[in-house]
Amino acid sequence: MSGARDGWIDRVGLIGTGIMGAPMALNLLKAGYAVTVHSRTRSKAEDVLGAGAVWADSPSAVAEVCDVVITVVPDSPDVAEVYLEDDGVCAGLRAGCVAVDMSTVSPDMAKRVSANVVALGGSFLDAPISGGKTGAEAGTLAIMVGGEGDALERVRGVLEAMGKAIVHCGPCGAGQLTKLCNQIICGLNLLAVSEAMVFAKRVGLDPKTMLEVVSKGAAGSWAVENLGTRMERRDFDPMFMVDLQQKDLRIALDSALSERVPLPGTSMVHQLLGANQAAGEGREGTQALVKVLERLAGV
Amino acid sequence: MSGARDGWIDRVGLIGTGIMGAPMALNLLKAGYAVTVHSRTRSKAEDVLGAGAVWADSPSAVAEVCDVVITVVPDSPDVAEVYLEDDGVCAGLRAGCVAVDMSTVSPDMAKRVSANVVALGGSFLDAPISGGKTGAEAGTLAIMVGGEGDALERVRGVLEAMGKAIVHCGPCGAGQLTKLCNQIICGLNLLAVSEAMVFAKRVGLDPKTMLEVVSKGAAGSWAVENLGTRMERRDFDPMFMVDLQQKDLRIALDSALSERVPLPGTSMVHQLLGANQAAGEGREGTQALVKVLERLAGV
Repeated sequence: MSGARDGWIDRVGLIGTGIMGAPMALNLLKAGYAVTVHSRTRSKAEDVLGAGAVWADSPSAVAEVCDVVITVVPDSPDVAEVYLEDDGVCAGLRAGCVAVDMSTVSPDMAKRVSANVVALGGSFLDAPISGGKTGAEAGTLAIMVGGEGDALERVRGVLEAMGKAIVHCGPCGAGQLTKLCNQIICGLNLLAVSEAMVFAKRVGLDPKTMLEVVSKGAAGSWAVENLGTRMERRDFDPMFMVDLQQKDLRIALDSALSERVPLPGTSMVHQLLGANQAAGEGREGTQALVKVLERLAGV
Repeated sequence: MSGARDGWIDRVGLIGTGIMGAPMALNLLKAGYAVTVHSRTRSKAEDVLGAGAVWADSPSAVAEVCDVVITVVPDSPDVAEVYLEDDGVCAGLRAGCVAVDMSTVSPDMAKRVSANVVALGGSFLDAPISGGKTGAEAGTLAIMVGGEGDALERVRGVLEAMGKAIVHCGPCGAGQLTKLCNQIICGLNLLAVSEAMVFAKRVGLDPKTMLEVVSKGAAGSWAVENLGTRMERRDFDPMFMVDLQQKDLRIALDSALSERVPLPGTSMVHQLLGANQAAGEGREGTQALVKVLERLAGV
């Protein structure tokens, strides 16, 4: 249930009820918050509306009735649209509102939206998430927060309804930069499991047994436990889509290039996931990377 | 304490009291086994002898007095020497003895040694380990076992004194093949953390905060928790040496080439760790990979 520190919050808005946003909205409702939602495709909000959320017809209509507005949309242009277009969040923003963008976008976009929100008397946090669909459902997301510490404390209860690790990473943009570190690691951990799976298959090991034992030692990872097991049972439903991982890696590689940091491994992962996209597998889960390596090896 | 099923075991031998072997021998003593040890450099056995182990002057002298002989040495030529030379394990092997090689060597070497041991009336298991120095000390190693299931059951109590996950992976050589999968994953997970750390440093994030939050989500891994934190505090003491990781990756890449499995990521890790070796950092821990990337980025 929402606590005493949430006394200033009458209503929380959430825009973007996709794979991540829908279970996050459900967890807000479960924690006792009054929730208003909007999503580009209304049908994706049905479960959340059924659980007690109220519909609003546009991002501005959400902002007009909410003290806290959360956005969870796919890419930088979507964030620009949701905040800055005529019927965007900024058009309806109340003074004193805290806007929390939990999408993964470029650090520059976070700074641009923040400037607009602050000019209207609101506060902005970039607070991208990790943990996949299962983490969103369980309310155990890792939340990487950039922006003013005061604003974070005002919405901490709201974030705690959705995540188990809420960490202040620095000023505006620092949440997104931390998320890029997260995606660099996720990408290479994914390649790690994929190469091991193809090798195991070719040399005749039982992949399930291999995954079981390596998960207990120095090779253990979230990727081994969650993506390896899905590769093993040929389940390519998205925990997190190839297309979105590619978007994140593109932002990471663009940032790395402009900061002059060579990322040879991340670059290779981006190229190999490009082969998934070329094969029409962009909307599958990232664990589909194993299929690219299988095609390379002819297994 | 050693259990009823160990009634047939009067004495366990352990050859190779290095970073891994020494704490493993200590755990055998702690579990109540009578232990005889030999090591190329006697000084490395001092702690183990102080804790109650008995010294033998050669691998054959160990084998002459032991029902179970464990070997933990660096590379394939060392295993060949320890088993097959004039004063090697095979020269002293008792019929009925179970020889367990916990080194990481080529699957072909495992098969060659096994044939020799079996010809003398013994049993052989290839049982390489993962978990690093900390896992060896805590007795929580992952142990990947290839060979006859009966032989494994006869020594399971002995292995349980050293590890928490003892998994039968298949026939002779399957332990080594599984370990290669493990090292493929370890190498890429290491590159993952290294790239994220250099990026974080360059863009001005606090690396400790970054590691803390990413460890809680889909980027979580043993490498983030154990190697990332060491990179952060500039501790390059070996949990596992670059030179040994390179030896393991060479075996993995050789096996992959002969099996016609392209491993582009693992190959890149091998090349980048080669830059550590070129810089005289081969005897540092694998977390020194971050220094190669720092030099590339000039940070």
